[in-house]
Amino acid sequence: MSKGVLQYDVGEQVELFLLIKSATKGIASNGKPFLTLILQDKSGDIEAKLWDASNDDEKNYVAQNIVKVMGDIQNYRGRSQLKIRQIRPSSQVDQVKLADFIETAPVSREEMTSKLTQYIFEMKNPNIQRITRHLIKKYQNEFLEYPAATKNHHEFVSGLAFHVISMLDLAKSIASLYPSLDKDLLYAGVILHDLGKVVELSGPISTVYTIEGNLLGHITIMVNEIGKAADELNIAGEEVMILQHLVLSHHGKAEWGSPKPPLIKEAEILHYIDNIDAKMNMLDRALERVKPGEFSERIFALDNRSFYKPVFHK
Amino acid sequence: MSKGVLQYDVGEQVELFLLIKSATKGIASNGKPFLTLILQDKSGDIEAKLWDASNDDEKNYVAQNIVKVMGDIQNYRGRSQLKIRQIRPSSQVDQVKLADFIETAPVSREEMTSKLTQYIFEMKNPNIQRITRHLIKKYQNEFLEYPAATKNHHEFVSGLAFHVISMLDLAKSIASLYPSLDKDLLYAGVILHDLGKVVELSGPISTVYTIEGNLLGHITIMVNEIGKAADELNIAGEEVMILQHLVLSHHGKAEWGSPKPPLIKEAEILHYIDNIDAKMNMLDRALERVKPGEFSERIFALDNRSFYKPVFHK
Amino acid sequence: MSKGVLQYDVGEQVELFLLIKSATKGIASNGKPFLTLILQDKSGDIEAKLWDASNDDEKNYVAQNIVKVMGDIQNYRGRSQLKIRQIRPSSQVDQVKLADFIETAPVSREEMTSKLTQYIFEMKNPNIQRITRHLIKKYQNEFLEYPAATKNHHEFVSGLAFHVISMLDLAKSIASLYPSLDKDLLYAGVILHDLGKVVELSGPISTVYTIEGNLLGHITIMVNEIGKAADELNIAGEEVMILQHLVLSHHGKAEWGSPKPPLIKEAEILHYIDNIDAKMNMLDRALERVKPGEFSERIFALDNRSFYKPVFHK
Amino acid sequence: MSKGVLQYDVGEQVELFLLIKSATKGIASNGKPFLTLILQDKSGDIEAKLWDASNDDEKNYVAQNIVKVMGDIQNYRGRSQLKIRQIRPSSQVDQVKLADFIETAPVSREEMTSKLTQYIFEMKNPNIQRITRHLIKKYQNEFLEYPAATKNHHEFVSGLAFHVISMLDLAKSIASLYPSLDKDLLYAGVILHDLGKVVELSGPISTVYTIEGNLLGHITIMVNEIGKAADELNIAGEEVMILQHLVLSHHGKAEWGSPKPPLIKEAEILHYIDNIDAKMNMLDRALERVKPGEFSERIFALDNRSFYKPVFHK
Amino acid sequence: MSKGVLQYDVGEQVELFLLIKSATKGIASNGKPFLTLILQDKSGDIEAKLWDASNDDEKNYVAQNIVKVMGDIQNYRGRSQLKIRQIRPSSQVDQVKLADFIETAPVSREEMTSKLTQYIFEMKNPNIQRITRHLIKKYQNEFLEYPAATKNHHEFVSGLAFHVISMLDLAKSIASLYPSLDKDLLYAGVILHDLGKVVELSGPISTVYTIEGNLLGHITIMVNEIGKAADELNIAGEEVMILQHLVLSHHGKAEWGSPKPPLIKEAEILHYIDNIDAKMNMLDRALERVKPGEFSERIFALDNRSFYKPVFHK
Amino acid sequence: MSKGVLQYDVGEQVELFLLIKSATKGIASNGKPFLTLILQDKSGDIEAKLWDASNDDEKNYVAQNIVKVMGDIQNYRGRSQLKIRQIRPSSQVDQVKLADFIETAPVSREEMTSKLTQYIFEMKNPNIQRITRHLIKKYQNEFLEYPAATKNHHEFVSGLAFHVISMLDLAKSIASLYPSLDKDLLYAGVILHDLGKVVELSGPISTVYTIEGNLLGHITIMVNEIGKAADELNIAGEEVMILQHLVLSHHGKAEWGSPKPPLIKEAEILHYIDNIDAKMNMLDRALERVKPGEFSERIFALDNRSFYKPVFHK
Repeated sequence: MSKGVLQYDVGEQVELFLLIKSATKGIASNGKPFLTLILQDKSGDIEAKLWDASNDDEKNYVAQNIVKVMGDIQNYRGRSQLKIRQIRPSSQVDQVKLADFIETAPVSREEMTSKLTQYIFEMKNPNIQRITRHLIKKYQNEFLEYPAATKNHHEFVSGLAFHVISMLDLAKSIASLYPSLDKDLLYAGVILHDLGKVVELSGPISTVYTIEGNLLGHITIMVNEIGKAADELNIAGEEVMILQHLVLSHHGKAEWGSPKPPLIKEAEILHYIDNIDAKMNMLDRALERVKPGEFSERIFALDNRSFYKPVFHK
Repeated sequence: MSKGVLQYDVGEQVELFLLIKSATKGIASNGKPFLTLILQDKSGDIEAKLWDASNDDEKNYVAQNIVKVMGDIQNYRGRSQLKIRQIRPSSQVDQVKLADFIETAPVSREEMTSKLTQYIFEMKNPNIQRITRHLIKKYQNEFLEYPAATKNHHEFVSGLAFHVISMLDLAKSIASLYPSLDKDLLYAGVILHDLGKVVELSGPISTVYTIEGNLLGHITIMVNEIGKAADELNIAGEEVMILQHLVLSHHGKAEWGSPKPPLIKEAEILHYIDNIDAKMNMLDRALERVKPGEFSERIFALDNRSFYKPVFHK
Repeated sequence: MSKGVLQYDVGEQVELFLLIKSATKGIASNGKPFLTLILQDKSGDIEAKLWDASNDDEKNYVAQNIVKVMGDIQNYRGRSQLKIRQIRPSSQVDQVKLADFIETAPVSREEMTSKLTQYIFEMKNPNIQRITRHLIKKYQNEFLEYPAATKNHHEFVSGLAFHVISMLDLAKSIASLYPSLDKDLLYAGVILHDLGKVVELSGPISTVYTIEGNLLGHITIMVNEIGKAADELNIAGEEVMILQHLVLSHHGKAEWGSPKPPLIKEAEILHYIDNIDAKMNMLDRALERVKPGEFSERIFALDNRSFYKPVFHK
Repeated sequence: MSKGVLQYDVGEQVELFLLIKSATKGIASNGKPFLTLILQDKSGDIEAKLWDASNDDEKNYVAQNIVKVMGDIQNYRGRSQLKIRQIRPSSQVDQVKLADFIETAPVSREEMTSKLTQYIFEMKNPNIQRITRHLIKKYQNEFLEYPAATKNHHEFVSGLAFHVISMLDLAKSIASLYPSLDKDLLYAGVILHDLGKVVELSGPISTVYTIEGNLLGHITIMVNEIGKAADELNIAGEEVMILQHLVLSHHGKAEWGSPKPPLIKEAEILHYIDNIDAKMNMLDRALERVKPGEFSERIFALDNRSFYKPVFHK
Repeated sequence: MSKGVLQYDVGEQVELFLLIKSATKGIASNGKPFLTLILQDKSGDIEAKLWDASNDDEKNYVAQNIVKVMGDIQNYRGRSQLKIRQIRPSSQVDQVKLADFIETAPVSREEMTSKLTQYIFEMKNPNIQRITRHLIKKYQNEFLEYPAATKNHHEFVSGLAFHVISMLDLAKSIASLYPSLDKDLLYAGVILHDLGKVVELSGPISTVYTIEGNLLGHITIMVNEIGKAADELNIAGEEVMILQHLVLSHHGKAEWGSPKPPLIKEAEILHYIDNIDAKMNMLDRALERVKPGEFSERIFALDNRSFYKPVFHK
Repeated sequence: MSKGVLQYDVGEQVELFLLIKSATKGIASNGKPFLTLILQDKSGDIEAKLWDASNDDEKNYVAQNIVKVMGDIQNYRGRSQLKIRQIRPSSQVDQVKLADFIETAPVSREEMTSKLTQYIFEMKNPNIQRITRHLIKKYQNEFLEYPAATKNHHEFVSGLAFHVISMLDLAKSIASLYPSLDKDLLYAGVILHDLGKVVELSGPISTVYTIEGNLLGHITIMVNEIGKAADELNIAGEEVMILQHLVLSHHGKAEWGSPKPPLIKEAEILHYIDNIDAKMNMLDRALERVKPGEFSERIFALDNRSFYKPVFHK
């Protein structure tokens, strides 16, 4: 695989196709317009300034377009910046496509779908199984495409499904060590816990919160959906309320967004499984970019801590 | 009206019919069984001990039964206690009935129903009006009978409806002073905000939390109900989500049980209206029992504060 | 009314008289001096840079002067900025005056004075009435001119009086719904609660904290003043202490600046009246600038929340 | 000095004159009245039960009376209790007096007065000196008699003056190590900081909070007094406000009762001097009763910590 | 296995050998001495009162002795109590021994030792392996006998080793799902994290905190021990500091007793493994005693929550 | 002494030798490299920009070099900045040396060493004395050179020793007022409390945290060192644990980095002595730069407060 834009060091020259993540017009101190471009490929994103931007530039360089850029990696206030020497829109002959520039889960959709199907298949309680299957079916496409969050962890295409698949494997191995745990509840809890994100968030790329996401949130959205699913499937057992409770309580505490704390054993463990998988994802991605004997960048969602990679970790 | 059990002073002798609120068996240090009875009438409740309880006593003196008691009001560790001299079960000839012993709202159901109807009638937005009317109709009986809480404020029969009616009047007068407020949203928010309590709580007397109340809570329950009502009524506008948000956010903060804080002007004001009415209810009931120049008992739900009644408040 | 500076969109050209709120000298990266001007009219204020400022410019363009400006509204880091093309000091022939550029309460002083007089007149307790009248008389001019705060809410000329007048109306309507409330205490509490701001703050425009404001604060200042007023008026009843308590406790909690929490029923309600009126003022001003279906700017004093205006609010 | 009631071990028999601190009537499980007496001498206080109390007993054994008691020290739920065998009121021939039973400061009033006079005499700033002298003179008797608190620290007769005297010595030695400190401010701050307690508390024995103490608190009371003193003495300099600030801020933080934190260097140090002296008093009194190698009782005002006395502290 | 004392219902009569966990003398209201005995077997402990205790009783019935008791299970203030009808000390002929009455880990020491040996054997980094082996060897006996805590979780004989063994299995399965984790660090962290408890606590039964436990705590104790072990083994690599950091940070946050939060990936995960295993232990033990459709007792170390067992959990 | 760079006002021209504290390369908006230099002398440090930096400039102007600069003091966004007109590296003939540019303690090393020796000499407990002497000897050079912190207080060469010496004097005078305090423990606690900083920090200038400092912290480091010292000196008494506790607890609370709060009287007082000396240092340095009647800059480590210097403080 060719080198991504974030893998160049300060001082190096780059010549790359990059996707415009966002473009904002500004006015320089000399009174002329310029564009602040956020450019990305799978390695991440970098800021670039296009000075003395013409009207054509403003039209050509907008979010979701792909450009060919030649320039230098520079250090600006401690962060990398790309100084543009030449830039042009990509054309058909360049044979580049959106998917080449966007980070996605390291597992294929087919594989994720098949794993998910298997876990649902293993459920023994028919009420739990039917509700879970119904909701996954209803939101299948979005589930396989959406990120798990706008930032912090699994914030990439298919991040939600990837997060769920990893959590399912973790749930399985914990349940085998603590056999009193109800696997059906754990699996259903894992699958449904963040499914409301497909309504809370705007989509797989340039992801923002929807109005419903802001006013109700993914937890409330999915608790409602479980209720409706049960109605449609004519299911009346206590399982409905328990599934709603699993989703409702999975943030663990009121101040973290769960109006009820976990009051079922599996709800308590679901909260931990969610945490471990999210944190491993953040830690691995942060430490990947760090050499042994160094500290990582501060990770906001981990209380702004900076993690150390021991020198004996080659 | 005759004097209630709480209106007697320490040292006075009483002879009253009282309702048994709860009865618990214990074993005295001499090894003999005794009953701890909580006895109540409309003035409140008091503890009493029935020493050397026989098997018959255990059967006769159970919750919800009415008894005739003769005894003395005593002080035990700073709280009043009723020392029983004589006790007997009431019989038909006594012509006493449950309703005589239970505190209820000071306004009749008819009056409350008519006020409520009027407020719903005044709504101009048909979506808001139809959802509100649908849900009030669905839970009309419970709404008119349930307390607003198990303790703290409006913890009496019909307390929920009484709380809502008072809040509606307050909402109306605030909306007339701040005309930018949407009265429809305010009225609907007031009517629906605590309606989930008819599922969260067990009933109008000896009220406890239901399992659904513990695991989901009245906020989540009613948010779900609004969604279902909209489905049944085939209503799809943004009003549905806004009504859900009003209920969802009415506790004001995550740590007080609202997973989203108020993000609509009327939601913010609803929170204040709820607070003012609940606090006025608690304050009036606490200060009623206090003489000018004295402090009230500590009020748990008001940060355990003890309030002062000025000497010039005759 | 003509269009204010904040009502222009980015890209539009303006030609306006504006008041200089503040002027700060800086040195550009080319070594030449420039001025950062904050320019305002009744619609609000905007930043402007005057590059290559001469000595004359420094003398002409100082706070409280009025200037004629021609320029463009631009976007700089997400905030509007005014790019100055031409600027000149205003002169007598321009016939512009300070008052044209400063936001003031939407009610005239006469009207506010007359309302205030009426509320004081309605008081029945002579001690409460005399102390209130004495203090309002002592600080009448400042009371009618000062803002209620340096920022957040009612931060405009006569904001303090306007806040008090609105609160009095709210107090009246709440007291009529909850007749156990002592109107005299409520009215006096409303009138005196923030009166210490006339000492805490520097004046009606370019408002900052005084040294006494910083070291003692408006609450302590007014509690002292009530004590002195009682001495001068030879009033000795418990009303003095109660009025001091109302002022002392009106922030509600120690961490919000009240060394004692409300311990009188009217003090508790005063705190809510203050909150509702301040929040309605902030909410109305923030939502005024927002279209249906959009979120407002974040409001710092409302926990940094961004409020939504429903699409059905035309 | 003879052995005090707290110096007896469980199992020992006592025959002592003791002061009744409080007497409360109760009804035993056999229906007969009894008295709970809190009896004290200089060593501390102990609970005693007087079973089968007659009407005469109720009249004889009331707070502030002195009794002769014979009985046994017993352990009841981990605390010492005095089992009364014989009790009788004291009479003139017993030649006992109140002062013999009440803990007081270990320094005489004369000595404290003379120290105080000396510190005031050393002040160089006449405004600070005159205000301090005026207020000490106004409250001289109470200052020399009151405790510094109802519990926690210096909760004995003359505790307030003793606390102030110790703090003055500490202030002097700190000021000599950090010569930038203004001794006048430190001394005046120490002398005035808790002087409001003579209004906040009810008196030297059986001390409770007054209504004014509850509604305003000693800080607000003394800040007002400083203002009035300045008026009476016709002093107008900044010293008045600074002295008010010293008293206002001496609790250090809003949540500890100071609406303004220390904003003057001497205010910051005053807060520390107050803390050190109060804590040394609590620690010495708690550790006095502990043997080397043991932990003290939990000390509520020190975050409920239990302190260890090292074995090498003989 | 025969029925344990906690498996009897209120009202049932018992005749059992029980171990005296503690014995405290008191004086009854009739002036006669009595003993409060805490009696236990493997099912848990129960309070019993022995009235009118003779001198012989005081000598016979002391902690660690075994008694034969006949009596009734009663309810006293909501908790079970054993009313003693007959009691006698056990003698040789009874053939009962301490170990029969004390809860121990459900896995044998041999099995635990062998598992531990295997995990240490699997370590690849010699420095980590040698330090871990050295410390386990040094404290082997205590490690296999001590509880993991005085209460809350794993508070039984060999609880510490059992907790560590379970955590090792969990660590292994998590590490196999997240291969970037360093197994050596995880295993060593698990083995050493609570090893300081063998100094912090007094022993396997009637466990209390030692003075060193109170003043330094198990975290500090073990961090010191790792330093000393490295010195003795002449190991100087960064592994020493990393192991100290793993132990130091395993409580996760300063306010939970870790002066440094986890700053190594494995330290973060260690904290979660510790939590999951401790919580599963508490949850399983609490829910064991609960029927489907009921709530457990409140669990103090789980934020005082009461957990629900769904009705479909047979 | 000649005027330091911070003593010049905005607008003044300077010609000074200055030490480069740090140098960072950037790229200007015209694409050319520039250097951001932080330049310092004993009066403090100031930022300067060197535009159009050549390769030679990059090599000449690096941290720890001394330069001769001619330029102007300007105001940039409210902070002073030095506009460079001319700059050159210093050479031997300039006869300037590092020590001339670095702030150091106002007391000589000899004087500090002699004071320290005297205090250790005064200790009576041989165990405490030997451990203290051993550790001071081990780290003598670093102890005399290191700052007490990277910022906030005593952040200058020899700041650690100066802080300790001042605290010793304060400890002595407090102990003489409260004779129950153990002077040996107080002195040893003062001397050892921050000694771990010689490992936690990188050195006397350009001070940053070491990896060990980040992962273990100075408290843990010194607690370990005390243990090792005791081993080496063959000391086994309780004094070892008590000294470790003094260091461990000196931050006062878990959330401030002490896993155990002070549980020894001298530990509690040590915490206060540390606080007073650190705060006096910060306050004196902040108020030095302020005129009477003005407020200081905000002091981050004092809760971001801005302190007032009274007008009567000439």
